[in-house]
Amino acid sequence: MRVDPTLFRWAPARAPQRLRAAERWAARQLLEALDDPPLRLVLWNGESVSSGASPPVATLRLRGPGVLLGLLANPALHFGEAYTQGRLEIEGDLQRVLEILFDAPKNGNRLWDELVRWRQICARHSLRRARHDVQSHYDLGNEFYALWLDREMSYTCAYFPFPEASLEDAQLAKFDHVCKKLRLRRGERVVEAGCGWGAFALHMARHYGVSVTAFNISREQIQHARERARREGLDERVEFVADDYRNICGKYDVFVSIGMLEHVGRAHYRELGDVIDGALTSAGRGLLHSIGRSRPRAMNPWIERRIFPGAYIPSLRELLLVLEPWNLSMLDVEDLRFHYAKTLEHWLERFEKHASRIEYRFDASFVRAWRLYLASSIAAFRCGSVQLFQVLFARPGYPAAWTRSHLYGAPLAEV
Amino acid sequence: MRVDPTLFRWAPARAPQRLRAAERWAARQLLEALDDPPLRLVLWNGESVSSGASPPVATLRLRGPGVLLGLLANPALHFGEAYTQGRLEIEGDLQRVLEILFDAPKNGNRLWDELVRWRQICARHSLRRARHDVQSHYDLGNEFYALWLDREMSYTCAYFPFPEASLEDAQLAKFDHVCKKLRLRRGERVVEAGCGWGAFALHMARHYGVSVTAFNISREQIQHARERARREGLDERVEFVADDYRNICGKYDVFVSIGMLEHVGRAHYRELGDVIDGALTSAGRGLLHSIGRSRPRAMNPWIERRIFPGAYIPSLRELLLVLEPWNLSMLDVEDLRFHYAKTLEHWLERFEKHASRIEYRFDASFVRAWRLYLASSIAAFRCGSVQLFQVLFARPGYPAAWTRSHLYGAPLAEV
Repeated sequence: MRVDPTLFRWAPARAPQRLRAAERWAARQLLEALDDPPLRLVLWNGESVSSGASPPVATLRLRGPGVLLGLLANPALHFGEAYTQGRLEIEGDLQRVLEILFDAPKNGNRLWDELVRWRQICARHSLRRARHDVQSHYDLGNEFYALWLDREMSYTCAYFPFPEASLEDAQLAKFDHVCKKLRLRRGERVVEAGCGWGAFALHMARHYGVSVTAFNISREQIQHARERARREGLDERVEFVADDYRNICGKYDVFVSIGMLEHVGRAHYRELGDVIDGALTSAGRGLLHSIGRSRPRAMNPWIERRIFPGAYIPSLRELLLVLEPWNLSMLDVEDLRFHYAKTLEHWLERFEKHASRIEYRFDASFVRAWRLYLASSIAAFRCGSVQLFQVLFARPGYPAAWTRSHLYGAPLAEV
Repeated sequence: MRVDPTLFRWAPARAPQRLRAAERWAARQLLEALDDPPLRLVLWNGESVSSGASPPVATLRLRGPGVLLGLLANPALHFGEAYTQGRLEIEGDLQRVLEILFDAPKNGNRLWDELVRWRQICARHSLRRARHDVQSHYDLGNEFYALWLDREMSYTCAYFPFPEASLEDAQLAKFDHVCKKLRLRRGERVVEAGCGWGAFALHMARHYGVSVTAFNISREQIQHARERARREGLDERVEFVADDYRNICGKYDVFVSIGMLEHVGRAHYRELGDVIDGALTSAGRGLLHSIGRSRPRAMNPWIERRIFPGAYIPSLRELLLVLEPWNLSMLDVEDLRFHYAKTLEHWLERFEKHASRIEYRFDASFVRAWRLYLASSIAAFRCGSVQLFQVLFARPGYPAAWTRSHLYGAPLAEV
């Protein structure tokens, strides 16, 4: 986690006076590029710069000229790098600072963003690479995740029937919301692609009487899921398969995937659609639950480098590349972005409670990186830079529900 | 409404024996292309041909060799042409026959379909052409539509809270379903693009206290709408503008369009998005209600030629071309295809009740054409060849509803 050393090279070694003026100018440029936010920059020599437009709500302390240059050259990457290394410190409300930065117009970097996006779109994930990418995030140790996730270890957007619901209740409500959308019936066969620690597969089997085949390439997660299934006496009805979604075979009434599409990679959407098409019976249906966007944009390069290697967040049009070639009808798309912001608030609060324990297990820069990842995700969902789509789809022959009122307590009416 | 005469040219004039064998072969080819449906063909000389696989549920009587050749060459066009002219008669359940034909695999014509689609995609609609296309359908006389539409003269998909609801109730329920999705508030400004006979604009103003500016290029419809607004004392709050949606100006809290996108033309989606973006305030939202598809396909050429000139039905991905470039967030997509099938069943039933009166006013081929258009639309919605999408979208700054439960009777919770 080092700032690229070439960034320093052009700075002449012995011209402190002129350099300081240039730096002050550069700091002003940075504020201008951010549309003069209510932030104060304090440079490494103690000098401070602010836009003066409105009283600053927080102070960003830059611990060297490299930080300033990095922020000017590629803010999306170097903000995270510098914050993680402690070379950029924030005095004030981190959440508020991130929201100000997310709301700033980003006119200058459209071409750069588009170039990065094309690299991400073209990236191909071999089975081995996919396994490596997933394990680098999800195999940090189940104890780590248990510290700040809910009891079920559900690491995806929860559904809060009302904003004050607890995280534990909201994760269970998410499971039921998805099951009701899919209208699971006793005895049906479900395949789940990317099952995390297995809580949703077990929930479906226990409460809806279906049999589930659940795929995941994270070793730690699958091991945890298998043990839980055995412990809870559900291992006859839920099979956890330690394999890639591309190796799904057999026929199922229902395909479901919660929070895996982000890891599939844009280049593999057609392949995923092919898997779904191959897995579904002639009256089958499915649901994709994924982070999405209002319009195509590159993944934030810091998140992609440090948190989720190989990830890509599609726009809804891009997401439909998975489904349209196979004549699967879109029945229902719901955006739950405010629910993901709320979920992340719960996670961040629990994470902060255990920050010192996590720092002891990993190190200070790990804590800073994860704090930034969680807080910036909250900001992104709040300001609408990203969304959470639940996409319900079906074969044309599927007898869909007459209305969606059964999701909200009314009895189910069928076509 | 004539079958292309060049179709007859290659048939040698004096070889009745050989020709009859060739025709029988051609009739079998037709059945084979339709995957051996349970239908009996009776040729013009009285001979009958059927696939024999299952007992025929209906008889198609072909009144000349031109009909057979037309059906082989371009069934999507010539089925409608021949039926309208009375050169193809159907003994049995028309609806059932159409559903059998819609369910048949259409492998042979993919390339042709794609060529037709590209012509449709590239078709540009000048203001004058758009006016001509719309008037050719909607200016057939308000009395004609009053015979078979509901009391409100709503000529778009209704929303049946339960399948047995009356058409009158279902059209009002559609208005309220859309208003609840948009969460209209007293005093807000709404712009409606393509307002038909004005019922929805008047409903919004009367029941939700908003002011509405409603655009339409059908002269007959606008005149009817203005008279109704005056009569009902709503002309201060609802302005009906006899103009193209492209001439919308001013700022609005809400953009809504019910059943207009089908007439916009694929080549103009970006332009429509530009109009929406220009019309919406910074926390505005909108709703598009349009027929759509699971995957891109050409408009049926007979429907496009005889019923809706210039129309195009987009897939959901194509529809999103309107919204994505402007960073409008998709909040909710609902498919109401079974509601449109039900709506059309009501329309067809009422149409048949007045068939002799309509034939007196127009002629027999007009009645056959409209019967086929309504019945084939029912078949298309039932088998999933087309869908009805309601797409709710908003600026990122719009404080969306917390859940969708307020659409189903629960009190509204806001973010």
